[in-house]
Amino acid sequence: MTKTERTYLDWNATAPLLPAAREAMVAALDLVGNPSSVHGEGRALRMLVEAARRDVAALVGAKPAHVVFTSGATEAANLVLTPDYRMGRTPLAVGRLYVSAIEHPAVREGGRFAAGSVETIPVTRDGVVDLAALETQLSAHDKAAGLPMVAVMLANNETGIVQPVRTAAEIVRRHGGLLVVDAVQAAGRMPVDIAALDADFLILSSHKIGGPKGAGALVTRGEVLMPVPLIRGGGQEKGHRSGTENPAALAGFAAAARAAAEDLTGRNAGIAALRDRIEAGMRQAASDVIVHGAAVERLCNTAFFSLPGLKSETGQIAFDLEGIALSAGSACSSGKVGESHVLTAMGFDAGLGALRVSLGAATGEAEVERFLAAFGRVVARRRRAVDAA
Amino acid sequence: MTKTERTYLDWNATAPLLPAAREAMVAALDLVGNPSSVHGEGRALRMLVEAARRDVAALVGAKPAHVVFTSGATEAANLVLTPDYRMGRTPLAVGRLYVSAIEHPAVREGGRFAAGSVETIPVTRDGVVDLAALETQLSAHDKAAGLPMVAVMLANNETGIVQPVRTAAEIVRRHGGLLVVDAVQAAGRMPVDIAALDADFLILSSHKIGGPKGAGALVTRGEVLMPVPLIRGGGQEKGHRSGTENPAALAGFAAAARAAAEDLTGRNAGIAALRDRIEAGMRQAASDVIVHGAAVERLCNTAFFSLPGLKSETGQIAFDLEGIALSAGSACSSGKVGESHVLTAMGFDAGLGALRVSLGAATGEAEVERFLAAFGRVVARRRRAVDAA
Repeated sequence: MTKTERTYLDWNATAPLLPAAREAMVAALDLVGNPSSVHGEGRALRMLVEAARRDVAALVGAKPAHVVFTSGATEAANLVLTPDYRMGRTPLAVGRLYVSAIEHPAVREGGRFAAGSVETIPVTRDGVVDLAALETQLSAHDKAAGLPMVAVMLANNETGIVQPVRTAAEIVRRHGGLLVVDAVQAAGRMPVDIAALDADFLILSSHKIGGPKGAGALVTRGEVLMPVPLIRGGGQEKGHRSGTENPAALAGFAAAARAAAEDLTGRNAGIAALRDRIEAGMRQAASDVIVHGAAVERLCNTAFFSLPGLKSETGQIAFDLEGIALSAGSACSSGKVGESHVLTAMGFDAGLGALRVSLGAATGEAEVERFLAAFGRVVARRRRAVDAA
Repeated sequence: MTKTERTYLDWNATAPLLPAAREAMVAALDLVGNPSSVHGEGRALRMLVEAARRDVAALVGAKPAHVVFTSGATEAANLVLTPDYRMGRTPLAVGRLYVSAIEHPAVREGGRFAAGSVETIPVTRDGVVDLAALETQLSAHDKAAGLPMVAVMLANNETGIVQPVRTAAEIVRRHGGLLVVDAVQAAGRMPVDIAALDADFLILSSHKIGGPKGAGALVTRGEVLMPVPLIRGGGQEKGHRSGTENPAALAGFAAAARAAAEDLTGRNAGIAALRDRIEAGMRQAASDVIVHGAAVERLCNTAFFSLPGLKSETGQIAFDLEGIALSAGSACSSGKVGESHVLTAMGFDAGLGALRVSLGAATGEAEVERFLAAFGRVVARRRRAVDAA
């Protein structure tokens, strides 16, 4: 085994920077000035920021004016998840937040809602949000404290399972609520259209689609109903998000958004074929492997699996030593490998453990072969450990 | 006049990216992975983030563990300016925020404090925070609602005037309050040491010291007394600031911090000499020019001046057409040239107008000559306009 060759299969944690995004970013780094300055230098950067807004809006079928740039998806989630809204200048209260049990921690933590005002929507054992439960929860919602807000992600970061957002939207509409959709993992991997989903708000991240870290967006349906700002100051982003804009990061985000929109079907069919080979290969090597969500609609690029007897942490380290970068779930909390809240929400024993392989546009046959060879060795060692016990 | 040659004299709005920062940043862009991932790729990026933390801490005499990275100074201000603190796990309330009248909007807006809990500390006509007024205000502070918090910047962004932070700290200590110091403009232009200033919290920005946009820091005195997080989620930055870390931006920030700490005295003496030539040249060309704060301690690089009869907006456009990028104050609110709140706070008629020239390490004799030539033409046109009237 050579240690120099690394195989990156952790695209859901972060995608490698696309060459086009890198180029756009580096070019923008050489432009001097502040986009809020009125002089020529400032105006050139302003144009770049506004061009980026058009590209990011186009990725999700929104109007450029409905894109608020943030430092990332986590900030966008904290901006949108608040009890304090304004309808124009009139305050509007959101009384309670309903989050699916499998949301990313950035959403599940509830943003600016008090812990007591956040309620969890359960998911089925298939990893799909339980819409009947949502219906029941919203029926019991007390509007005296304010509107209900519902957060359901479009595709889960750990399992890749696509959630029934359009149907959730119908339920939310019927109860006069607001729908927040975390589209961070879905963008670039399936069609995302804010109007087709009937979402009020979409959350996007640059670095998950091949753009640089440090950029994200909150996309809205209109400009009238907006959250009270999270970050106040110089009044940038029409006052919705203060702080000097980051033209280089936004230029990279825009380039990634353009690339994500291109040949979505063709690119993703290729990725799905490789992912399916990985899953077939794993089943061949270990008949007891469990591929979570295999029976339901999933993103083309994600395989979340459990190998009985292999703990998440042990497995992740074993693959790392084999030269394979994969994940035990979401990459958070400073490198700690915790239990997967997604697995638990699906009703599995948290001790079962699970690993995530996630692919991207640059993944090829060679990566699949290297992963399956490593998987074979990990399985063999597990067998020997069991035999020795 | 050739339009192709531009002269950038707006370093307080944003400093051009330093070559060393650009290099560090571009190198980091090519590293694949998420710093929170436990695999080899993640750990390499984690090391880069922690190295950046050491460099940024060193710039202000702090411990690396006392640096919380943010997306910029505005976010850092919104993180620290909150009524909700924790002493370890025990909640601690801040009852009222006292902000100097000349703070940057990122601070003056009061972060998470309700508008009614924010009180302004006046400044003298010299542009210096009125410490006698602060003493009176803190004497009247009602501790029933919580501690007092005071925000006084180390150097003003518009005038460059250095504020008596050390003396303010003594007053704040006497009244058992907390001191927040916006050191955004001071860093790299004068010595900044959090302990010597006796500040509880310092705010820093990367792009004002020659690093990239999209990075900033809240520096603390310890780890026990901390604000309730502004951005919650995956628990990065020990839970004080969630969201995927931005290693490339932090590597650039770190390179800029190292450069800012190098040869501070020598570099700034050179910049001060150029700034003084600009002011002498302006006085020679227009005897009625007012250089604000000329009588008090100022940053080496800033000249904030009023030319009676020249409005801020007109002046800024006139210089822009002459190829000179300067500012009418802070670069905020999407390119609007508003009245300077600093000028008003100093007791001047807001209609007087003022322009800011700010220099940096790359400013040379040629820039000074071009500015003074343009200044001469602007003054001549003002004279003709007055004669014609």
